[in-house]
Amino acid sequence: MGELTIWTLDWVPAGPRGFVRDLRLRWACEEAGLAYAVRTIPFEDRATNHLSRQPFGQVPYLDDGGLELFESGAGLLHLARKSEALMPADPRGEAETLQWTVSALNSIEMVSVPWWFLTISGHKDNQLTEWLDKRLRHMERVLSEREWLAAGRFTVADLLMADVLRLPLVRAFGDRPATEAYVERATQRPAFLKAQADQLALFEAADVKRVSEGSS
Amino acid sequence: MGELTIWTLDWVPAGPRGFVRDLRLRWACEEAGLAYAVRTIPFEDRATNHLSRQPFGQVPYLDDGGLELFESGAGLLHLARKSEALMPADPRGEAETLQWTVSALNSIEMVSVPWWFLTISGHKDNQLTEWLDKRLRHMERVLSEREWLAAGRFTVADLLMADVLRLPLVRAFGDRPATEAYVERATQRPAFLKAQADQLALFEAADVKRVSEGSS
Repeated sequence: MGELTIWTLDWVPAGPRGFVRDLRLRWACEEAGLAYAVRTIPFEDRATNHLSRQPFGQVPYLDDGGLELFESGAGLLHLARKSEALMPADPRGEAETLQWTVSALNSIEMVSVPWWFLTISGHKDNQLTEWLDKRLRHMERVLSEREWLAAGRFTVADLLMADVLRLPLVRAFGDRPATEAYVERATQRPAFLKAQADQLALFEAADVKRVSEGSS
Repeated sequence: MGELTIWTLDWVPAGPRGFVRDLRLRWACEEAGLAYAVRTIPFEDRATNHLSRQPFGQVPYLDDGGLELFESGAGLLHLARKSEALMPADPRGEAETLQWTVSALNSIEMVSVPWWFLTISGHKDNQLTEWLDKRLRHMERVLSEREWLAAGRFTVADLLMADVLRLPLVRAFGDRPATEAYVERATQRPAFLKAQADQLALFEAADVKRVSEGSS
């Protein structure tokens, strides 16, 4: 494989800044010490302007020396195979990392993201609230007994799970001290802080460009 | 690794029969020609009776010679590493399989399962309908151009995506001929038919046992 490029949007409104999922891939590269570039596609027409490379019109996607992958979860598992900083190489450590990575995608986010969507659409107490409560209470129990999810150390599973759990509305959901401490622990890591700062800087620079183009 | 065991519930009501997710792991083993056993935990108290092995109280989980994995998606990717029948071994084929497997979990099922849940809870036209429609139309476009999702051949990504798309309410959602043909193609495979028949037989045998125990 050759050079790593993370593709994202060239601009987003204030709301999603710091949460666009290119951050997951930036964070993973920073944890693993993998060199990477960031390139962008236009925010305007984003629903259709890159369907040949991301069939749902989403970002990010990853280019690894010409090998392209969409789905941030797939990108993370792909990067994890490059560095033991992200996933242990032994079968048990790998299996634990894999199962918790998929849990973040399919047991937590499958409930939390639609719940979040209903909530911001004006349905505060919605039909997914009880389901989310159950899932988050299971996570709280797990996290009250361990520092990291897999293999007794930070892995890409924590990177993803913490990114899923740090959504402000999810973070404010109920009193879950072990989960809060976990999110705090993960998001204080230098690699997260660097990834977040870099994403924010990209979109801020795009603001400046938009203003200057508008005034020229 | 040693013997493969798929763990599931010892009984379920009529509704979910043929759709309990142990079917995904059975199907994968059948496609790959991997020998496996099926063992069960009691349906009663299922919410709490196996939390030490599946932290969300769900099934299935996989035991691979003492190495245990929960999350059917993780079990599928674990099995896929054992057999090229499930995933090509070359980097591009593996990356394509991985991205479409994660798409099934996090781009389709993340919308289709909560939509299904709202729908069966009595909210026929719900707030997730438009989102699901968008995602399924993207899939229809992709499937109108190819027979299988990854690497030009059937992979574990098709196994999972077809299992996600074959849910009766999802299958009946709109007119999507390419998707319907895809679901038909996948579910006519001998490995699927065997897996489905075996799951149905397990639960039917449990009915008989329940009746005979009730009358003794």
